[in-house]
Amino acid sequence: MTAKSITRTVLITGSTSGIGLGIANVFAKNKYNIIFNGLEAEGSAIASSIAKENSIDYLYSPANAMRSAELKTMVDEGLAKFGHIDILVNNAGVQHVAPIEDFPENKWAQILQINLTASYLLTKYLWKQMKQQKFGRIINIASAHGLFASEYKSAYVAAKHGLIGFTKVAALEGAAFNINCNAICPGYVRTPLVELQIRDQAKSHGIPEGEVITRVMLQKQAVKEFVPVELVGNLALFLAGEKAGTLTGTAIPVDGGWSAQ
Amino acid sequence: MTAKSITRTVLITGSTSGIGLGIANVFAKNKYNIIFNGLEAEGSAIASSIAKENSIDYLYSPANAMRSAELKTMVDEGLAKFGHIDILVNNAGVQHVAPIEDFPENKWAQILQINLTASYLLTKYLWKQMKQQKFGRIINIASAHGLFASEYKSAYVAAKHGLIGFTKVAALEGAAFNINCNAICPGYVRTPLVELQIRDQAKSHGIPEGEVITRVMLQKQAVKEFVPVELVGNLALFLAGEKAGTLTGTAIPVDGGWSAQ
Amino acid sequence: MTAKSITRTVLITGSTSGIGLGIANVFAKNKYNIIFNGLEAEGSAIASSIAKENSIDYLYSPANAMRSAELKTMVDEGLAKFGHIDILVNNAGVQHVAPIEDFPENKWAQILQINLTASYLLTKYLWKQMKQQKFGRIINIASAHGLFASEYKSAYVAAKHGLIGFTKVAALEGAAFNINCNAICPGYVRTPLVELQIRDQAKSHGIPEGEVITRVMLQKQAVKEFVPVELVGNLALFLAGEKAGTLTGTAIPVDGGWSAQ
Amino acid sequence: MTAKSITRTVLITGSTSGIGLGIANVFAKNKYNIIFNGLEAEGSAIASSIAKENSIDYLYSPANAMRSAELKTMVDEGLAKFGHIDILVNNAGVQHVAPIEDFPENKWAQILQINLTASYLLTKYLWKQMKQQKFGRIINIASAHGLFASEYKSAYVAAKHGLIGFTKVAALEGAAFNINCNAICPGYVRTPLVELQIRDQAKSHGIPEGEVITRVMLQKQAVKEFVPVELVGNLALFLAGEKAGTLTGTAIPVDGGWSAQ
Repeated sequence: MTAKSITRTVLITGSTSGIGLGIANVFAKNKYNIIFNGLEAEGSAIASSIAKENSIDYLYSPANAMRSAELKTMVDEGLAKFGHIDILVNNAGVQHVAPIEDFPENKWAQILQINLTASYLLTKYLWKQMKQQKFGRIINIASAHGLFASEYKSAYVAAKHGLIGFTKVAALEGAAFNINCNAICPGYVRTPLVELQIRDQAKSHGIPEGEVITRVMLQKQAVKEFVPVELVGNLALFLAGEKAGTLTGTAIPVDGGWSAQ
Repeated sequence: MTAKSITRTVLITGSTSGIGLGIANVFAKNKYNIIFNGLEAEGSAIASSIAKENSIDYLYSPANAMRSAELKTMVDEGLAKFGHIDILVNNAGVQHVAPIEDFPENKWAQILQINLTASYLLTKYLWKQMKQQKFGRIINIASAHGLFASEYKSAYVAAKHGLIGFTKVAALEGAAFNINCNAICPGYVRTPLVELQIRDQAKSHGIPEGEVITRVMLQKQAVKEFVPVELVGNLALFLAGEKAGTLTGTAIPVDGGWSAQ
Repeated sequence: MTAKSITRTVLITGSTSGIGLGIANVFAKNKYNIIFNGLEAEGSAIASSIAKENSIDYLYSPANAMRSAELKTMVDEGLAKFGHIDILVNNAGVQHVAPIEDFPENKWAQILQINLTASYLLTKYLWKQMKQQKFGRIINIASAHGLFASEYKSAYVAAKHGLIGFTKVAALEGAAFNINCNAICPGYVRTPLVELQIRDQAKSHGIPEGEVITRVMLQKQAVKEFVPVELVGNLALFLAGEKAGTLTGTAIPVDGGWSAQ
Repeated sequence: MTAKSITRTVLITGSTSGIGLGIANVFAKNKYNIIFNGLEAEGSAIASSIAKENSIDYLYSPANAMRSAELKTMVDEGLAKFGHIDILVNNAGVQHVAPIEDFPENKWAQILQINLTASYLLTKYLWKQMKQQKFGRIINIASAHGLFASEYKSAYVAAKHGLIGFTKVAALEGAAFNINCNAICPGYVRTPLVELQIRDQAKSHGIPEGEVITRVMLQKQAVKEFVPVELVGNLALFLAGEKAGTLTGTAIPVDGGWSAQ
């Protein structure tokens, strides 16, 4: 929207696969420096290839969201290399599906740690620097499940709701320092993980993949199409805009109308 | 976000002043044809000047939102000239401030008509065409008051909440036809009308204009700055995007954190 | 919850059938004076019979929500008879189902008038008296459609969202005068009207009535049972409580989990 | 609302002080058996005194919400004594106030554990029994901070939003088994802890206590009075009603109009 006066650096967790990768591609095309993060074995190669293709500077960190020390190191390395980290996209997340009565306590703890606490930690580690430079953009990839529930996803729904709560606090505390903080709440995005689920369910139910998609996966969406990952990426880019400071504290659904009905 | 294959036409109500004018400027810079609308005496000149400056094609209509026949004529003229109207921005609105017990019944009716019913009418008049071309983008400029209340604004708050309700229905009905419908909920935007209010209040309270702004006007916002009209315009442009079909049925606050607290 | 020091009077619109009648029964059992209202031919007899059965004092008014003068007369007659009207339950409502492109303009106007404007008018007419006595309880029967949309119900959804907006304004303006104002948002309640719909749909689809209920009517509810009208009535009674003044400005779903998913 | 066929048992965490104690008093007066819980030294005596006064049966457990094994033991002891636990009120909570950049990681973890994870654990431990008896009522005492944020309360706001997310999942999973699950979101309730804060702030700011209350504490409420703890207790009792099964998945503010503005 407005020309950047300097090259901005964006840190995106979970950016070597799925939605995070899609967001990274959008920022790369728009010439941001990127701090990639992800646990994939080929994470470093993925990061390097996107950076090369788009002629951007980058860093890759295999920091594990379960360990705060590794998150701190990632931030420190990023600041050492780029001098400033301007945008934080908290995207890494895990899921576990089980009825409440069987939901494993360690899975609950892990989902809260990765989907919620890691976002707080990275925000905390970056806050002083963002405050000092009077510019910060924090984008939390929540989910439609940050606003509504589905059965058997108690930890995920709790963590994503919690992430939206945290988003609002960060928005208030950042208001005086040109730090905005928003959540994006995607419905169903077609990622490699989802591809696998479609194939599996088609096989196990004995119905065509197209039917799995419209009747099972996209049942809650009014628009019977997956949300394009570029749309999520472009919305993140919009929220990261130089003049987007007054757009803050929101949770924006990109969910094919799920939240409207 | 994606190159338009054709030149899109946008109809923006109340676009010869205030927020509507700001939105029109954004679409004009991005080379959309514009159907301007507004009751200002100099409306036609304003429209012509923006069109000239940005080398776009345009139409100006002084249709009065109080009269459905005039709204219908505006749509018919637009379709006759451009062949298609692709984006509708329902922006025209009026306000009246009074306690419930004194709120004039004719003011209530007028506010519901202009801020809510006119949006339904224009959507209705454009629906068939949007459906047939399998492309439509409807953007309703609600307000933070579409989500929350302030004292003495009963008709305005009711109408804006109603507009968000209508937004959701249009999103659901449009889902199968690539028609999205969203609401933008601005906090306080610096328009000429607001400028006047600042000056008046500073005078009547005997305090500096800066204090009127932060303590009175922006009291509910966490960010003590007006929302830039370009931000609202750019968000409208984003929602109008060629591939934004799955972003639908939402009410997006641009309110400096008002809705977060 | 707390013993009433005096006999309270409640005015309930649309109280000679459906949900309104159910609410009236609850207040009658709890010894409130009731101002009944409804257009049924046998309205007066229904009112008289409930009053007799419960040994309460009552008034019946056939005021038509389309005509503000009749609403004003109903209030005046109520005040003349009882001296004070302490609780207002805005329950009367109408529905019309049609796609946006075919939605008749006169139906839109009628639905806004009855489901929204009439509530504002009665609130306005009662406000001064409630303010003076420093006690007022206003309960707006919105609907799950005050929070979410369904296809083909554009006027109803707009009006009910608008009613929730108005609820919030009345809550703010009433805060200093011990007037609370809340909305109840029922999902599907089994009323005679709904009974008819079930029978019709069972016939036209050629499926058992039980299937119409769980698969069609209650599709959006997680609990596959109708909401008991007594539950809505008891919630209204709760909101009308002597010490419920700080419970205000809310929209409470009673919808079998619809709004949670 | 409806006569209970059997004596119901309610487990209330944090019920030997503050809001929890207020809720316990309401259930005691209504002749429920109570499982008290709290870390106060005099917890056992408090429980015993309430039980005696109201002639109810009771159990007191000093289970610490930080330790899941203790929560499990409390449930097992309760089931052993009463045969069934019908209602769970997750009320225990802690707060810590600090800017994001200084927010201690151990305080974050503790707040998530007590205000969120403990509620999941107790729900999990009680689920099978509630499912089998086809009756369960789960009431989570969230807070206005489950819906909105305040500065410097990042962990609390995240945990309380998360609790509301969990509430919705439990509502969906419980729908088929007559288990409802709702959250109550109080604004400011006058508890001994709050009394202390008022005195402290009056002293430190050098202003009268009344001013601390209306200008500082109740700033976000439209009603400038504390929420009576009995109102919260009575609402919990309502949600626990024998026929309240379709009232589920909600988050009900009792906040003096905070959430309306």
